[in-house]
Amino acid sequence: MLDQDDRLDLMLAGGRVLTLDREGTDLDPGRVGVRGGGIVLVEPDEGPRPKADRLIEAKGQIILPGLVNCHLHAPMTLFRGLADDLPLDDWLSEHIFPAEAKWVDPDMVYWCTLLAAAEGLLSGTTCMADSYFEERAAVRAFQESGLRVVCAQGVIDFPAPGVPDPARNIEVAERFCRETADRGGLITPAIFCHSIDTCSAETLRKARGLADRLGVGLMIHLAETKGEVERCRREHGRSPVAYLDGLGFLQKNVVAVHAVWVDEDDAALLARRGVGVAHCLESNLKLGSGLGPMTMLRAAGLTVGLGTDGPASNNDLDMFGEMRSVALGAKGAARDPTALPAGEVLRMATRDGARVLGLADWIGTIEIGRQADLIVLDADAAHLTPMYDPVSHLVYAADRSDVRHVIVDGRVVVEDRAIKTFDLARVMAEVRRLAARVKTAPDDHAASG
Amino acid sequence: MLDQDDRLDLMLAGGRVLTLDREGTDLDPGRVGVRGGGIVLVEPDEGPRPKADRLIEAKGQIILPGLVNCHLHAPMTLFRGLADDLPLDDWLSEHIFPAEAKWVDPDMVYWCTLLAAAEGLLSGTTCMADSYFEERAAVRAFQESGLRVVCAQGVIDFPAPGVPDPARNIEVAERFCRETADRGGLITPAIFCHSIDTCSAETLRKARGLADRLGVGLMIHLAETKGEVERCRREHGRSPVAYLDGLGFLQKNVVAVHAVWVDEDDAALLARRGVGVAHCLESNLKLGSGLGPMTMLRAAGLTVGLGTDGPASNNDLDMFGEMRSVALGAKGAARDPTALPAGEVLRMATRDGARVLGLADWIGTIEIGRQADLIVLDADAAHLTPMYDPVSHLVYAADRSDVRHVIVDGRVVVEDRAIKTFDLARVMAEVRRLAARVKTAPDDHAASG
Repeated sequence: MLDQDDRLDLMLAGGRVLTLDREGTDLDPGRVGVRGGGIVLVEPDEGPRPKADRLIEAKGQIILPGLVNCHLHAPMTLFRGLADDLPLDDWLSEHIFPAEAKWVDPDMVYWCTLLAAAEGLLSGTTCMADSYFEERAAVRAFQESGLRVVCAQGVIDFPAPGVPDPARNIEVAERFCRETADRGGLITPAIFCHSIDTCSAETLRKARGLADRLGVGLMIHLAETKGEVERCRREHGRSPVAYLDGLGFLQKNVVAVHAVWVDEDDAALLARRGVGVAHCLESNLKLGSGLGPMTMLRAAGLTVGLGTDGPASNNDLDMFGEMRSVALGAKGAARDPTALPAGEVLRMATRDGARVLGLADWIGTIEIGRQADLIVLDADAAHLTPMYDPVSHLVYAADRSDVRHVIVDGRVVVEDRAIKTFDLARVMAEVRRLAARVKTAPDDHAASG
Repeated sequence: MLDQDDRLDLMLAGGRVLTLDREGTDLDPGRVGVRGGGIVLVEPDEGPRPKADRLIEAKGQIILPGLVNCHLHAPMTLFRGLADDLPLDDWLSEHIFPAEAKWVDPDMVYWCTLLAAAEGLLSGTTCMADSYFEERAAVRAFQESGLRVVCAQGVIDFPAPGVPDPARNIEVAERFCRETADRGGLITPAIFCHSIDTCSAETLRKARGLADRLGVGLMIHLAETKGEVERCRREHGRSPVAYLDGLGFLQKNVVAVHAVWVDEDDAALLARRGVGVAHCLESNLKLGSGLGPMTMLRAAGLTVGLGTDGPASNNDLDMFGEMRSVALGAKGAARDPTALPAGEVLRMATRDGARVLGLADWIGTIEIGRQADLIVLDADAAHLTPMYDPVSHLVYAADRSDVRHVIVDGRVVVEDRAIKTFDLARVMAEVRRLAARVKTAPDDHAASG
C-alpha cells in the first residue's frame, strides 16, 4: 500500500479502470497513482484520495493501458494517399520506391515522424515500433514527442536513404544502435532487415550477429505475400520461416512482421524460437496480400501484436481502427463469430504488443511496478451509448476521437485531445511544404492529387 | 445561372466541393447555394459571392454529398454491445430475440431511434433506411431529428412488437404506410419482410401485392448466411433469389439486404429485375456470415449501396468505418489491391445508395436540382495530412469525427459537431434509463456488463 505521506506526481481517478492484468481487474470507479513515471497505486476510487501534484478527474471515462503499435514506417506520412488501389508491384516500383529515393532525407524524416507521433498519440498509441531509414532523425522527433518507441534502422542490400553504399548497411545500423542506446530515455534501438527478398543470406547473418553483440531486437517483413513464399521455395527449397531459421536468424528478440503466408509447420517453428508476430491486417488487406492465419498462429502459442504498417498502405496510424478490423476480419476469415473476441483483440493491442516488442515487464497493463503508459477515453458519446461492456465498445464502437488524455511514462503528452509536447500546427505546415514538392515534381508518376 | 437578385437561403463556400456527379466535378475552392431545400448553385468560388441568409465558410474543408445508410435497425441502439462474439444462433435466440420481445415498445423505439439518428447525423449520414417494428414511433423520432429516412415496417410470421398477432402483419404494414405517406416531409414509408425463413410464401406474396397497391418499396434480408441458402435449396429446390423471384417478389423497388451468398445466376436474375443490394459488410463479418461477392455483383450490373446493419451486430452506425471496411475487405477477399478503388466505394456510400433506395433523382450528388443533403468535413487534422487526393482520404483515412456540419434538405442539422434539432443529452439519458432495466433484468441471458 501507498504511504499516505508519499505524494503522487499524478493521479487519474473516478473513471472505470480496465487494468488488463492477468485477472482482468476492472475497477469502477478506480484510481491510478503515478510517481517517477511508474504506476505506484491501482485501487478502487473509494475513501480519501491520496495527495497528488496533479489530478485527472476521469468520471464517466475509461482508463486503460496505452495501445502498442508493433509496426510502422513513421516518415511515410509524407506518402499518405499518394498512390492507392494499384497492383502491388506498380505501387512499389512506380510510386513508393521512387518517391522514397527522391524525398527521404533527415529533414523529411524528422518532420514526417513528428506527424506520425502526433497521429499515434492523438489516437491513443503510447508505444510504437518504427522501422525506416535515416532513423537518427526519427529518434530526434520521437524524443521530442514523448512517445515510447522501438526505433529500428533499416538494413537492405540496395542504396537507401542515408546508406548510399549497401555494403555499409550493417555498419550504419551498428552506429545507430550504439548512439541511440547511449541516449537512454524512452527510445530503444533495433535493427530492421527489410525482407528476405531484399537482404542476402550474408546480410541477414551479419544483422543477427550485430543484434547478438549489441543485445538489440530484429524486425523483418516475413511471409507478407504469397509471391515471397513461392520465390523462397523456388530459390531455397523451403518456406521463408524455415530459410531464416536455417540462417540462425530466428530468436526470441525477433519480430516477424506480417506472417500472412505461414503454415502450421512455420508457426510451430516460430513458436519454438520465441518469435513474436506483428499483424498488420489493414495494410495486408489494402495491398491484397491476404487476411493471415492469426487464429492458427495464436493457437500455436505465438504472441501476436497489432501494427498499422506505414501510412502509405493503410492509410492511417489508428490502432482503434486496426483493432476493429482485426476483430471483424478474423471472424470473416473463419466464418466464425466467436473468433477473436473483443477482449482478446484488446490484449493483442496492449499486453501482447508489449510482449512482442520485449517490453512486457514495463508496459501493456495497469499494474503497480509498470511504467505509466495510460490513455483516458470519453465514454459520453452517442456511439458509445448505452454501455453494457466497455471492452466490447473499445473494439467495436469506439474510435480514436474518443481518446481524451494520453500519458506516457507518467507524463501527460495529450490533454483534452491536444498534443502538449510539440507544435502540431507547425509540423503539419512543414509536412505540407514537403508534400507540395512531391506533388509538383515533374517526373512523379503518382496519378492522384 | 442564378439571378443575382435571388437571395439564397444558405451558401457553403470556400471549401473543396466533391460533387460526385457523373463527370466527377471537383471544385477547389467551390460554393454550393441552397434555396427551399434544394441545390440551386454549384460553381467555383470565384468572383463576388451571391447573397445568402446564411453562409457556411468552409475554407480548408471538404464538402460532399451526405452518406446514405441503406440498412439498419435504428432502435437496436439499446442492444449495442449487449452480446458479442457468440455463435449466431445463440446470439439471436438467447440474446437478441428475447431482449426484443421484452423491451421493444413505442417508448423504446422513439428514444433509441433518436439516438441512432444522432449517431448517424454526427457521422455524416443524411439518409437512412430503417427496418423495424413499432415503426410509427421511429417515424416520430426521425421527423424530430431532421434526417431523411426510408422507414420500413416489419413483417414477420411470428408475434412481434406492436404486432402480437402475425395474421395481421400485412394490415399493420398497410396502415403504417398510408399514415406515413400522408405525413409527407422527409420520411418515405416502406415494407420490411424479415427473411424467407421467417415469412411464408403467402406473406411474401401479400407484401408484394401491398407494395404494388401503395407504390412503396420492399426490403428483405436475403441470402445472408450459407445456412439460409442450404435450407432454401432443401425446402424449395432453388436459391433464395430464385425462390423469391418465383413468388413474383423481385422488382425494381426491392432492396436485397446482405446478398452474401448469391452466385452468378442469382446476380443475373437480381440485375434483370432491377433489384438493389444493401451490402452490410461489418455486420456480415461480425456475425461470421462471410465477405460477400460485391465485385461480382457490381460486374453483373447490380447497384450496391452500403449499410451498417443494426448496432447490435456492428456495433455502430458509422458509414466512414463501413466505407473503409468495404474498400479493404473487397481487396482482401479478392487478394487484389485494385478491387473497389476509393472512388467507387465513395459512390456506393452516396449516389449508389440513393439509387438503391429509389432516391437517386433527389439525393446522392451535389448537382443543381437535387435536394441539399450535404456534409462538411474538417481536413485540418494530423491523420489527413498531407492530402494529395481527398477521395482517398475520405475512404482510407478520415473518420466520423472529421464531420463538422451536416445539412439535410437545406437545413443545418449538425453544426460544429453538435446536433441542432433535438437534445442529445436528454436522449442519451433516456436510453441509459432503458438500458439499466435491460442490464438488471433477472432473466436476461446476456453475460456482458
